Amino acid sequence: MTSSHPTYKQPRITLVGAGPGDAELITLKGLKALQAADVVLYDALVSEELLAFAPEQAIKVYVGKRSGEHSQKQEAINQLMVDYALNYGHVVRLKGGDPFVFGRGYEELEFAAAHHIPATVIPGISSSISVPGLQQIPVTHRGLSESFWVVTGTTASGQLSADLYQAVRSNATIVVLMGLHKLAEITALFKAEGKHHLPAAIIQNGSMPDEKVVIGTVDTLVDLAFEHHIKAPAILVFGQVVSLHPQFRTIHELHDYTTR
Amino acid sequence: MTSSHPTYKQPRITLVGAGPGDAELITLKGLKALQAADVVLYDALVSEELLAFAPEQAIKVYVGKRSGEHSQKQEAINQLMVDYALNYGHVVRLKGGDPFVFGRGYEELEFAAAHHIPATVIPGISSSISVPGLQQIPVTHRGLSESFWVVTGTTASGQLSADLYQAVRSNATIVVLMGLHKLAEITALFKAEGKHHLPAAIIQNGSMPDEKVVIGTVDTLVDLAFEHHIKAPAILVFGQVVSLHPQFRTIHELHDYTTR
Repeated sequence: MTSSHPTYKQPRITLVGAGPGDAELITLKGLKALQAADVVLYDALVSEELLAFAPEQAIKVYVGKRSGEHSQKQEAINQLMVDYALNYGHVVRLKGGDPFVFGRGYEELEFAAAHHIPATVIPGISSSISVPGLQQIPVTHRGLSESFWVVTGTTASGQLSADLYQAVRSNATIVVLMGLHKLAEITALFKAEGKHHLPAAIIQNGSMPDEKVVIGTVDTLVDLAFEHHIKAPAILVFGQVVSLHPQFRTIHELHDYTTR
Repeated sequence: MTSSHPTYKQPRITLVGAGPGDAELITLKGLKALQAADVVLYDALVSEELLAFAPEQAIKVYVGKRSGEHSQKQEAINQLMVDYALNYGHVVRLKGGDPFVFGRGYEELEFAAAHHIPATVIPGISSSISVPGLQQIPVTHRGLSESFWVVTGTTASGQLSADLYQAVRSNATIVVLMGLHKLAEITALFKAEGKHHLPAAIIQNGSMPDEKVVIGTVDTLVDLAFEHHIKAPAILVFGQVVSLHPQFRTIHELHDYTTR
């Protein structure tokens, strides 16, 4: 391999956050990286519409997992990324949301660095903020929330994150990603703190045409999820800010009416 | 006013997150909204390069504040936004970062709703995640952090947020926005918890060509900020993930050397 060879391209890697699902929520910078890609390695939950921005001759490789499929191991993705960069030049690693919000992006950077391949990061719209936001639920709002705390529902060990035990005691807006399969356990933690009536929401397929939202309280959330057939991917939001959602106001009016 | 009048345009408002500063970190969707704007109301910390995406004839109004200037009151901004929509049609309200991360975006939505003007939201790249990320400091990383907590350093009352007193006791990565002027108070809270050696960073003008970063620990951060003439806008990051930054490794090597 020599740099005078006409087809040789300098290996480099760009981690790009694709956003929460809607293809138009990628950044302009991420789009430009895609347009300059020799190879695109993309995850599940990344809109395939985005692949159309990459050059036609660019190699596009799906490395995600979907429910019921085997996932590529992170080590295998790291290796693919480096192999493609060494052989084809510019690899765009297109990741759902932001690369550093439970995205294992740093592990990919470390692997690239260990192989002396320059790597840069282009942030993405994280679902943790944007998916509530698109439902007009603000993660912060004067008088209701001075902070927000984003926790994973899926830790490496399979247990609930120890951070969640702290989070349920705080006044922050709590956003749980990848937590739907632990919903009963998570709501039980809030109940143990006496927060039965804390407003809470689940948003499935946020930012997509098939988006679904259920709005309730800690006490009603598991039943609502069941009744409305909520499935992953979904994010959970707990906090007074959820009371700003129009569906929550309806719950209140109904309650006022029935207790009058 | 009649809808048959040729110049009448349906009033509507789009809240658009402009991202952390770098103009290319706006979303494609945000860009398209700008291209369809009749009026743009923009904040400080929004790149003026973005205004070039709006039509030439669109009205561009600066409604931000910069250090030392009087700020427009939120109420005045709300009123301007509605007045422009009623008179000119599509108002794009271009806000730094994401509209709902300490952006008072919900107050603008409420005001629009009270005037029966349809309003939508286009999320932006929040500096809380992206500014550390561009420094290759991941807000989450397996083995180091299972959550991150974003707190404002500037509350309506001028006091430190009560949430910060809880945050310093948690294992989350703590990101403080608009907290530089309270740096001594904030680091004192961490010290009171015995977290003198917790890795910590300040990033000024994140994502911009004049970005500055200082990396240290809770104990050294105030001195470092002073030595390096760090000024607002800046974000603070506290947590083990900061130890992944190359400058932190240098501190460690130096320390190993001097204590050998």
